[in-house]
Amino acid sequence: MIVVVTPNPAVDVTYRVARHEPGETNRVLDVQRRPGGKGLNVAHVLAGLGVAVTAVLPLGGEAGRWVAGQLQVPHDVSALHGETRTTVTVVGEGHPTVFTEPGPETSEAEWARFGALLDRHLAGADLLVVSGSLPRGAAPELLGEWVRAAHRAGVRVLADVSGPALLAAAKAGADVVKPNLGELLDATSTVDERAGAEQLARLGAGIVVVSRGAEGIAAHTASEVVEVPAVPGVSGNPTGAGDAATAGLAAALVAGLPLVQGLRRAAALGAAAVLRPVAGEVDFGAYRRFLDSNGEPA
Amino acid sequence: MIVVVTPNPAVDVTYRVARHEPGETNRVLDVQRRPGGKGLNVAHVLAGLGVAVTAVLPLGGEAGRWVAGQLQVPHDVSALHGETRTTVTVVGEGHPTVFTEPGPETSEAEWARFGALLDRHLAGADLLVVSGSLPRGAAPELLGEWVRAAHRAGVRVLADVSGPALLAAAKAGADVVKPNLGELLDATSTVDERAGAEQLARLGAGIVVVSRGAEGIAAHTASEVVEVPAVPGVSGNPTGAGDAATAGLAAALVAGLPLVQGLRRAAALGAAAVLRPVAGEVDFGAYRRFLDSNGEPA
Repeated sequence: MIVVVTPNPAVDVTYRVARHEPGETNRVLDVQRRPGGKGLNVAHVLAGLGVAVTAVLPLGGEAGRWVAGQLQVPHDVSALHGETRTTVTVVGEGHPTVFTEPGPETSEAEWARFGALLDRHLAGADLLVVSGSLPRGAAPELLGEWVRAAHRAGVRVLADVSGPALLAAAKAGADVVKPNLGELLDATSTVDERAGAEQLARLGAGIVVVSRGAEGIAAHTASEVVEVPAVPGVSGNPTGAGDAATAGLAAALVAGLPLVQGLRRAAALGAAAVLRPVAGEVDFGAYRRFLDSNGEPA
Repeated sequence: MIVVVTPNPAVDVTYRVARHEPGETNRVLDVQRRPGGKGLNVAHVLAGLGVAVTAVLPLGGEAGRWVAGQLQVPHDVSALHGETRTTVTVVGEGHPTVFTEPGPETSEAEWARFGALLDRHLAGADLLVVSGSLPRGAAPELLGEWVRAAHRAGVRVLADVSGPALLAAAKAGADVVKPNLGELLDATSTVDERAGAEQLARLGAGIVVVSRGAEGIAAHTASEVVEVPAVPGVSGNPTGAGDAATAGLAAALVAGLPLVQGLRRAAALGAAAVLRPVAGEVDFGAYRRFLDSNGEPA
């Protein structure tokens, strides 16, 4: 069982407009709503791969009820007093515009209740994945608490987080951290991937997996760098590709596969996610073809 | 009892951003959510005036449940399968940007159920107010049905609607229609206020009240035009001022006051609404002062 934590889930709303006119009233032509948050995307892809998964997440208010009602994966919810956030993406001519709400103010007592719920799911789990941002105002050290709770339960941790939360996960000894290259350089204030990875390792991280988008994916250990190229010639919607890659890596970890096979699965799933317009969905037929062309059975 | 219909209520969301950057990710600094829709503003002001009021409205989904939970006025809801719309206003530097969702697709059966609910409230009512847009795709002729239903119950109708719905309300013989000047000219394809009002009267409308913003408010009957100037020197947030004016007019109608007194109340309430930052709220102290300065007791 993989337990996936989404610290700051969302209602992801997409507004299609003819043209986005700042300062004017923009008539929305159509509206798409779906549950959002990186961890939920990861959980969705894992479920699609046939891997046993439980999404554990805090939700609050009517927006939270809506998210819970829409989830297609097994889940357990810790109730919040505040309202689960919404993100609005405006799609028209040109590049999409995104408005990100900060997320609900969450009290220490609410995080403690969330931690107790997580503890129950960690008992007997194979892996904890924490993916996505914390609500604004939440202490990055929550990552440390969750990593330590997993380790107390004998469960490994894969953390796909950024900024101070990434540093906190590393310090607490997360077995795998998976920033993208920009997040790695930001969090470590370095300009070099290997230097950044070494810094996270010195803090206490196990393997540092760095996703480089079109440049592929790399895993840094103390002694080596294992690299897998991106699947060439794939274009589409990159949103959620990193989450699909995280799911591939997580599935390989619980299957006991060698690191390079985990990276190949991550790269193939990332590319197969680009082919689907919706984050959290993957073209599984393409995934199998991409893996085969790599000389690997899916 | 005044029955107020809001055909297309909303969750009105305001996002404050440092700067609205199209094509970028915009971090929302704070979020305000409130029930929206012109009819709800009217009902709120009527309740503030101490007038007996019931808001009758269709609501659907989690957004609809949220609106119902927030309403501060007596109300009765007809449940929709679709999701009540959201409007997003982005406030930063410069003029606010508004994104308006179309509103839920509403079936004929759902409108029939809404009509039956309205019929129950019309029995024994003094006035029906219909205020605000229809959901996109709804037949403007719904206005005609509601006007006729009210008249069958012996109830007068004040309609603050625009476009084809305004024409439908006039054709069905609405006792008072209250477009603003732009809406009047749009709906009647005229460039002259009196000509537009005469066109609505020929269709069947009773009194045509035209709100002119800073230029005051006028009532057109077959034989005369009664005009009241706007309260001078008032500045603030004009959103909702027209709805407060509608409430003033409605309250005067049920109190049996002469038309000119209704217009004075409308002008004073509109100005008193401009002083409050939130649509649907009125500075009632200022309202009384504005009426007094007009030589009228409130």
